[in-house]
Amino acid sequence: MSESRTEISSLGEFGLIEHLTRNIELQNASSIVGVGDDAAVIDHFGKQTVITTDLLVEGIHFDLMYTPLKHLGYKSVVVNLSDIYAMNATPTQITVSIAFSNRFSVEALSEFYEGIYAACEKYGVDLVGGDTSSSQKGFVISVTAIGEVTPGKYVRRDTAKKGDLICCSGDLGAAYVGLLFLEREKQIYLESPQVQPDLEGESYVIGRLLKPEARKDIVEFLEIQNIVPTSMMDISDGLSSEILHICEQSKLGCVLYEEKLPIAEEMRKAAFKFEIDPTACALSGGEDYELLFTMSQSDYEKIVLNEQISVIGYMTDAEEGMKINTRGGQVHPISAQGWNAFKK
Amino acid sequence: MSESRTEISSLGEFGLIEHLTRNIELQNASSIVGVGDDAAVIDHFGKQTVITTDLLVEGIHFDLMYTPLKHLGYKSVVVNLSDIYAMNATPTQITVSIAFSNRFSVEALSEFYEGIYAACEKYGVDLVGGDTSSSQKGFVISVTAIGEVTPGKYVRRDTAKKGDLICCSGDLGAAYVGLLFLEREKQIYLESPQVQPDLEGESYVIGRLLKPEARKDIVEFLEIQNIVPTSMMDISDGLSSEILHICEQSKLGCVLYEEKLPIAEEMRKAAFKFEIDPTACALSGGEDYELLFTMSQSDYEKIVLNEQISVIGYMTDAEEGMKINTRGGQVHPISAQGWNAFKK
Repeated sequence: MSESRTEISSLGEFGLIEHLTRNIELQNASSIVGVGDDAAVIDHFGKQTVITTDLLVEGIHFDLMYTPLKHLGYKSVVVNLSDIYAMNATPTQITVSIAFSNRFSVEALSEFYEGIYAACEKYGVDLVGGDTSSSQKGFVISVTAIGEVTPGKYVRRDTAKKGDLICCSGDLGAAYVGLLFLEREKQIYLESPQVQPDLEGESYVIGRLLKPEARKDIVEFLEIQNIVPTSMMDISDGLSSEILHICEQSKLGCVLYEEKLPIAEEMRKAAFKFEIDPTACALSGGEDYELLFTMSQSDYEKIVLNEQISVIGYMTDAEEGMKINTRGGQVHPISAQGWNAFKK
Repeated sequence: MSESRTEISSLGEFGLIEHLTRNIELQNASSIVGVGDDAAVIDHFGKQTVITTDLLVEGIHFDLMYTPLKHLGYKSVVVNLSDIYAMNATPTQITVSIAFSNRFSVEALSEFYEGIYAACEKYGVDLVGGDTSSSQKGFVISVTAIGEVTPGKYVRRDTAKKGDLICCSGDLGAAYVGLLFLEREKQIYLESPQVQPDLEGESYVIGRLLKPEARKDIVEFLEIQNIVPTSMMDISDGLSSEILHICEQSKLGCVLYEEKLPIAEEMRKAAFKFEIDPTACALSGGEDYELLFTMSQSDYEKIVLNEQISVIGYMTDAEEGMKINTRGGQVHPISAQGWNAFKK
């Protein structure tokens, strides 16, 4: 972090906006008017517009004791882009609003925006507007993302069909275990500030928490393979909570297989250090930002060679309920608190 | 306000969203998917999309001691719609995100949403998404508004021309004087809680603060008259601040006439009670949410009979600066702190 500290009051609101947005270059032809007017103007000829928004509050969604501001900026964008991809759409623009107390300097906000811009560049989206404000206490971030999709190609949560395969991208549960490490080190630091943090070897799980990515590659792969999922959402609250949404909204049941859940070796080892079940982490961990989708069985051959996609179960009639078959051959009901259910 | 109090924890996040959004009926054909999926889907065939966002923070932008929650919900929407109208566009959808501490009950949030829905109904916009979150302290509101405009008909701030007439809708400064009354009564209440508030006769200025409207009617009038303003913005920070934006962004100067500034009789009387200059209130008051626009002199005949539009000056070369001609025949420079400038 920079050693210098510029008071925000030295710039004023418009000076601050100018400072934070001076290097923006719009990347999308559809971004007609960007930052600096009452509203942005976006062209969507022949496309449908997709919009999503998230509010992130200090002390609730992030802890600045162990979250670098640049990572926070990056993640604030990515969690919204993930929702756009989960509609099978392509993100094109974002707006970012922040409120901050006077403990933040211009340098701190610039670091946060570095992360915002890094995500914009990586995902090819344009920052086209926002709002800056003071707060009496804490840091609040509101991001809205806009995307576009060919008419009729968007994918909802309530359109899964009986017999469809349930698929999931990447691996699950690592961000949650990363959080456990960071919370543990925070407690140790608060009690004994002289102790050096011991996060050796945990960069994978911590990276999954602090710098998640949205699965642009999966949406592009599905497009190339000419697969339109029958339903899709991103996994932000945990697999068990999300599959329940798809089942309830599609009025169906499901069967998952514990042995099919994608678990990274780094997560498995890390979970054992906390003496917790990796399967419980994968089911209920949250903040994975992987894609959960259903598709027709007839599309199976098209995805079988993609190592980033796991088939983890299939959709059933609603009467059959929502179940998971364990490695030991038992059948458990899935609950949104899969974690607790597993502890029983 | 309702006497009953339902704890938000009794509903849970998804129960709360369901409770707050259960009566939504989408009004726009372009609203294809609304609340309840990863993102909303909006159709904009043959139109351009306009987007704006505002963040409102308790203690900074509003004081719940004298702001009814229903009014706050209404105003949160209106201030964003005002930015859409200021682009010469029609608002069609909004998203609303809120963060609140546990001092808020379900009944309190329902009141807030009553105001949101009242504004949606009045302006014909659809609530299509959002986010709810807890906060450690205070109430935070983030609203994003989407609108549509015929391609090329949007109006920016940086396109005013020399010689254009400067016009403004409605009247200015009343919201600021309303704020002075409410702040005075708050201080009296804090010092002597038994004293009854004395706001008799001040309903106009207080209403302008607590329940502003966006000037949909002006945008519709301009459309009917076939007038495309050369530049436009809404007046949220005060006339002098906004006209400086138009001048700077259009690289021009301006002359305003004090005697032409639209001032309501109620505001004038109220300002005198505080022994302040009504002109200073009109120039620097803020929160008026009127439209400030420039147009070609050749359009003058089309607006002259509209009592809701005042011609207050004209655009000049940049070298002539930004000036106001007073009733007394003097010429003052306009500054963003027009208030202080007038006190000198």
